[in-house]
Amino acid sequence: MPSYAAPVKETMFLLNDVLNIEKYNNLEGFADATPDMIEAILGEAGKMAEELLQPLNQVGDSEGCVRSDDGSVRTPTGFKAAYDQYSENGWGALPFPEEFGGQNLPATINACVAEYVSSANMAFGMYPGLTSGAVAALLEHASEEQKQTYVPKMISGEWSGTMNLTEPHCGTDLGMLRTKAVRQDDGSFKISGQKIFISAGEHDLTSNIIHLVIARIEGAPEGVDGISLFIVPKFVLDADGNPGERNGVVCGSLEEKMGIHGNSTAVLNYDDATGYLVGTENRGLKAMFVMMNEARLGVGVQGLAQSEVAYQNAVTYAQDRLQGRSISGTKEPEKKADPIIVHPDVRRVLMTIKSFNEAARALVMWTALKGDIHRRSDNEEDKQAADDMMGLLTPIVKGVITDKGFDNTVMAQQMYGGHGYVAEWGMEQFVRDARIAMIYEGANGIQALDLVGRKLPSKGGRAVQAYFKEVGSFCSAHKDNDDMKPFIAPLSKALTDLQTATMWLMQNGMANPDNAGAASTDYMHLFGLVAFGHMWGLMAVAAHEKIASGDGDKEFYEKKLVTGKFFMERVMPEHMAHLARIQTGADTMMTLNAEAF
Amino acid sequence: MPSYAAPVKETMFLLNDVLNIEKYNNLEGFADATPDMIEAILGEAGKMAEELLQPLNQVGDSEGCVRSDDGSVRTPTGFKAAYDQYSENGWGALPFPEEFGGQNLPATINACVAEYVSSANMAFGMYPGLTSGAVAALLEHASEEQKQTYVPKMISGEWSGTMNLTEPHCGTDLGMLRTKAVRQDDGSFKISGQKIFISAGEHDLTSNIIHLVIARIEGAPEGVDGISLFIVPKFVLDADGNPGERNGVVCGSLEEKMGIHGNSTAVLNYDDATGYLVGTENRGLKAMFVMMNEARLGVGVQGLAQSEVAYQNAVTYAQDRLQGRSISGTKEPEKKADPIIVHPDVRRVLMTIKSFNEAARALVMWTALKGDIHRRSDNEEDKQAADDMMGLLTPIVKGVITDKGFDNTVMAQQMYGGHGYVAEWGMEQFVRDARIAMIYEGANGIQALDLVGRKLPSKGGRAVQAYFKEVGSFCSAHKDNDDMKPFIAPLSKALTDLQTATMWLMQNGMANPDNAGAASTDYMHLFGLVAFGHMWGLMAVAAHEKIASGDGDKEFYEKKLVTGKFFMERVMPEHMAHLARIQTGADTMMTLNAEAF
Repeated sequence: MPSYAAPVKETMFLLNDVLNIEKYNNLEGFADATPDMIEAILGEAGKMAEELLQPLNQVGDSEGCVRSDDGSVRTPTGFKAAYDQYSENGWGALPFPEEFGGQNLPATINACVAEYVSSANMAFGMYPGLTSGAVAALLEHASEEQKQTYVPKMISGEWSGTMNLTEPHCGTDLGMLRTKAVRQDDGSFKISGQKIFISAGEHDLTSNIIHLVIARIEGAPEGVDGISLFIVPKFVLDADGNPGERNGVVCGSLEEKMGIHGNSTAVLNYDDATGYLVGTENRGLKAMFVMMNEARLGVGVQGLAQSEVAYQNAVTYAQDRLQGRSISGTKEPEKKADPIIVHPDVRRVLMTIKSFNEAARALVMWTALKGDIHRRSDNEEDKQAADDMMGLLTPIVKGVITDKGFDNTVMAQQMYGGHGYVAEWGMEQFVRDARIAMIYEGANGIQALDLVGRKLPSKGGRAVQAYFKEVGSFCSAHKDNDDMKPFIAPLSKALTDLQTATMWLMQNGMANPDNAGAASTDYMHLFGLVAFGHMWGLMAVAAHEKIASGDGDKEFYEKKLVTGKFFMERVMPEHMAHLARIQTGADTMMTLNAEAF
Repeated sequence: MPSYAAPVKETMFLLNDVLNIEKYNNLEGFADATPDMIEAILGEAGKMAEELLQPLNQVGDSEGCVRSDDGSVRTPTGFKAAYDQYSENGWGALPFPEEFGGQNLPATINACVAEYVSSANMAFGMYPGLTSGAVAALLEHASEEQKQTYVPKMISGEWSGTMNLTEPHCGTDLGMLRTKAVRQDDGSFKISGQKIFISAGEHDLTSNIIHLVIARIEGAPEGVDGISLFIVPKFVLDADGNPGERNGVVCGSLEEKMGIHGNSTAVLNYDDATGYLVGTENRGLKAMFVMMNEARLGVGVQGLAQSEVAYQNAVTYAQDRLQGRSISGTKEPEKKADPIIVHPDVRRVLMTIKSFNEAARALVMWTALKGDIHRRSDNEEDKQAADDMMGLLTPIVKGVITDKGFDNTVMAQQMYGGHGYVAEWGMEQFVRDARIAMIYEGANGIQALDLVGRKLPSKGGRAVQAYFKEVGSFCSAHKDNDDMKPFIAPLSKALTDLQTATMWLMQNGMANPDNAGAASTDYMHLFGLVAFGHMWGLMAVAAHEKIASGDGDKEFYEKKLVTGKFFMERVMPEHMAHLARIQTGADTMMTLNAEAF
């Protein structure tokens, strides 16, 4: 049976000592969130994740969601009761405005809670997660009346939300979508078409489901400039705003999939379903992108979350499992064998995952904080700088953290030997669940293209230049500090390689765009190394300061320094290989005809 | 629905043009296997895999094996009929001596057939695969009478075989095993204990199952020097040598596992089961190791096989799926979108897998040929050199090919976007099936330790020195050939790094064995890069020669050169990162207390 303990202490270290969240008291809602209050909230969130959600993780996987012939869907045993409790306790309301029933807490705090929830039960967490994404899109783009009508009940958890983009013939290339919207005399639309891969698309947790659907209004232009966004409630609201008549959207089937069995992945068939336009006609994709950016950060959190829970269980097993003797001499002679954590190769794996998790958590929170600044600051310059940075880092958070997070679940599973392959131990579920995060909300190859093709050149490279300046200044500021040498030297090298790669891209991607495409995934991961390295730098500075001050848990801070040093020694060197690959360009991979493969 | 086409042309290229198998006509059984005959056999084997086994792959996964209350196990629909046909056509008999009903063909050819079988249906292939391993152990260690009694019916497929090592508390560390053997007056033994993770441990395919079981004879020394090997038939043979009385071994349960559902993974409970000692008392582990080396090569083949079939299906999808437009300009304007194979990042993935598969296949066959030379040559020097090389390369074949093979199934799955996560498309099954190959027959961390701790220092480093000489001579011989420069330059660099790492290990592993353990996995993968690079060098030489001669399919050989060049440009650079990691040593990862994780 796997277990989980929410890493509240880690989160608090990042909030208080690394990000110095108290500095941001000028942001709306931040002043109310004192360190003590945050700690109390995170403590409760951790308990909720550990006690309410984690015990349902394996049953969710083994039972899955079941569709009846009438198109209704039953979630796994215990999900409904847990969902009710989750909602009653207001967990779905954390980051939203008070006027709609939200608690107006920083999105940064919400990201921490999302990590705990996803570690405990990723499939469960997707139900409120999708709702949050839908709420974010409505708050940004819906009319005041639409907001008043839908948002409070979504924030309270009474209703849930979905996002409907993919169709059988188009996922990445949404310009090809066929779902049709026909304008009615009353201003509403009739929506018809088929959507697939709709997470939380049909279920028994809420009394209504608010689908956000992209479709093409009759006569709209072809391609992405003819896409509009609609609200399509499962039950059309009656005059009192309560769920009334059943709308023309039914779940045609559920996908049988590799993991996240506890979440229903629906094929939704729309047949003259009543829908309401959100925002401006033909500008639906832009509105949807708000939701997708939120969602991409959320998916990055899932990658971290699975890596964290898999790590915790790998540690427990490595501490308990007796097998063989340490090659440097028996460590526990009174036992039949030493615990496998004595073996360097086991430690290599555990330290690799640990050093990733801590950096990834820092990066998620650092990026989420940029989002908060962007949304809540009243300084235009700060807002813009934060938005630039969040846009630049979003593909890193999504693409790199889910790629590596998945690899980490595989490595953690490996610690268990044959037991890792057996369902009962729970390790293989982490692998299967984590796998989807590399795919949805824009497959990671698309994240890499977004980074290289959109985020880098955007506004003359303003964001990436600011980023290089920030990391470069950090390195300069600490390069003469002996304590920081193990961190600054490798980070500087990696930054130099990233800058070299960026220059190479500018020169060679212009001459032949295929060079940019050929470099994109390696470039994204190279960027990720620098971003994680930067986070380790920040954490090391904080740890040194805390140790020097004599405050707090010295052992905790010393462990940070060891873990960060491991990252620099063992994970960082990959930057060389990425740069070498990038610089070989596209020629060889583009040589063969498509038929020659 | 996934599909599969056996890569017979690839195999023939390796046999004829790269390995020049005709040179080995002096080896027993090789002269009979003319190129034409081999091609005919492989053609038939390919058809068998494609038409008989591949169609059962998904049903095997979805149905799995079912245990009844009486301990009997039903295999998936179609497995029994396919198994009968497989056996009738003699596929289980290929590499074994004629006196026991075998066909005496090179093991190298058998490895090729095993690849096709495993690509088509890995779970199925394990039933005859385990039998082959058991036969190999019996041929090497059993008495003449035991061989006559059991081997012919195992080779014919009438009976199957298993290997029983693991117990709940011991896998890697077999010295801890508890299964007991009590000597009886008639010279037989009574075996009692529990074995777990027994592949093909109970099923309905054969009229008897011959379990090879390691156990400790009462009074034997503790540890690995007190382990003996036993034959324990499911049905004890009657006076005529036919299955008679049911023996005291029952399947207590089947594991519910991540993949290879079509193969039964049994918990076997032995309760005073009749067993017969194989070979010398207390020398059982050595006998079992024969089987394990065969098995490790076979598992490496599984890694390649899943990578190959996943690749083939990724290619088909990439050629068919229309999504987006090429960034270097529309390629198929008459279609709604270009096929995704126009995108460099898609090609990067496909070329990465392709360049791995072709090198891995070469390495498997190169290593299997060493096994043939070792077993069949009458020149002592050749035998010993071949044995050294096979021993050295076995952990590479097992550890690296299964690690990378798994990664490749994940990358191939990624090509499918959301469809890759859905069971129906079959891609996620390849991932789940491939995953076990990293674990069983010695988890890959153990392979790395076997390489670093056993194979490298063995006989004063004789094997590794010979290997360096062989690869070094190859580089020297071709370094002035301009055509070969794209291959020799990167291979030489990687070889230098491998030699540097080897020196580092000798110096620092002596001082502190933890340094060797800390380096082991990176060292194994660094070694793998050199081994694959060497194979690409050999293939490139062969391709250049064929092109120069004007013989054969020029396009095929040119494709080889492009693929090899890709490997050198995009895969090879990893050697730098491996060396850098190795040289950081064990200190940082050994710093924390076990409780500090």
